Amino acid sequence: MDIDPPGKLRHFHADYRWDEVAEHPYKEEGSAPFRAIARQVLFSAPELASELRYFEMAAGGYSTLERHQHAHAVMILRGHGHCLLGDTVRAVQPFDLVSIPAWTWHQFRATQGEPLGFLCMVNRDRDKPQLPTEQQLAALAANPEIAAFLAGG
Amino acid sequence: MDIDPPGKLRHFHADYRWDEVAEHPYKEEGSAPFRAIARQVLFSAPELASELRYFEMAAGGYSTLERHQHAHAVMILRGHGHCLLGDTVRAVQPFDLVSIPAWTWHQFRATQGEPLGFLCMVNRDRDKPQLPTEQQLAALAANPEIAAFLAGG
Repeated sequence: MDIDPPGKLRHFHADYRWDEVAEHPYKEEGSAPFRAIARQVLFSAPELASELRYFEMAAGGYSTLERHQHAHAVMILRGHGHCLLGDTVRAVQPFDLVSIPAWTWHQFRATQGEPLGFLCMVNRDRDKPQLPTEQQLAALAANPEIAAFLAGG
Repeated sequence: MDIDPPGKLRHFHADYRWDEVAEHPYKEEGSAPFRAIARQVLFSAPELASELRYFEMAAGGYSTLERHQHAHAVMILRGHGHCLLGDTVRAVQPFDLVSIPAWTWHQFRATQGEPLGFLCMVNRDRDKPQLPTEQQLAALAANPEIAAFLAGG
């Protein structure tokens, strides 16, 4: 169940699952490139203007490289890894905060041989993500640091 | 600074502080009863429909007992404690999720001899909290479990 019932406590379990929260494959359509990542919606309700989701990648996994109008507010919850944030690659660790503004290319990668999990707050009403064109991807990869990141380094 | 700049990584520090995030006393006006609690605003920006705040109480501290129209979506981040949620008292521990609907009395208490910290997602536009009247407080305390909670037990 993704909609949280009123006045409820849902306990956390050591495997990063929560009472009454379903785990979903990251994207059902399969058209976007991603690997070994799952989504759990922790809070979603009509009276909340935003949703809070938990995404977790297995070691070596990664989220889709994408951008969109809506902003993301991310807190790392589990593990170490890296993220592409615009034209920079940054190392992240638990409880770090990542602000992803409109139209900023971003991707998370579990680069450190352990799962990487993060909270993502996002407006309830939002646009769909865009994937990079071949030209846009080549422009990103012209930066050697980003090329190494995209190659899983 | 409470407004997060665009495309930014802000690191977490072991004392539950973050780069560029100011720590505020819980409420400046001093009219509401609370103890040993501080607030840090992790994400607040015009493009985000909600804010994400971190509240932390020292051992023995507590938040204001209050209710309001707006809902809270809470995740415990640090320590163990208890919360009043409507007409029940619940034990909470890290990463537990607490849904606080409209007009539900709530209070958090660091009852276990350690700090209790939690994330709270809240709509950017929201109403002001109400405090209980003496009659409402007496009605709550008619429940022995709640009376013990309010007495700091």
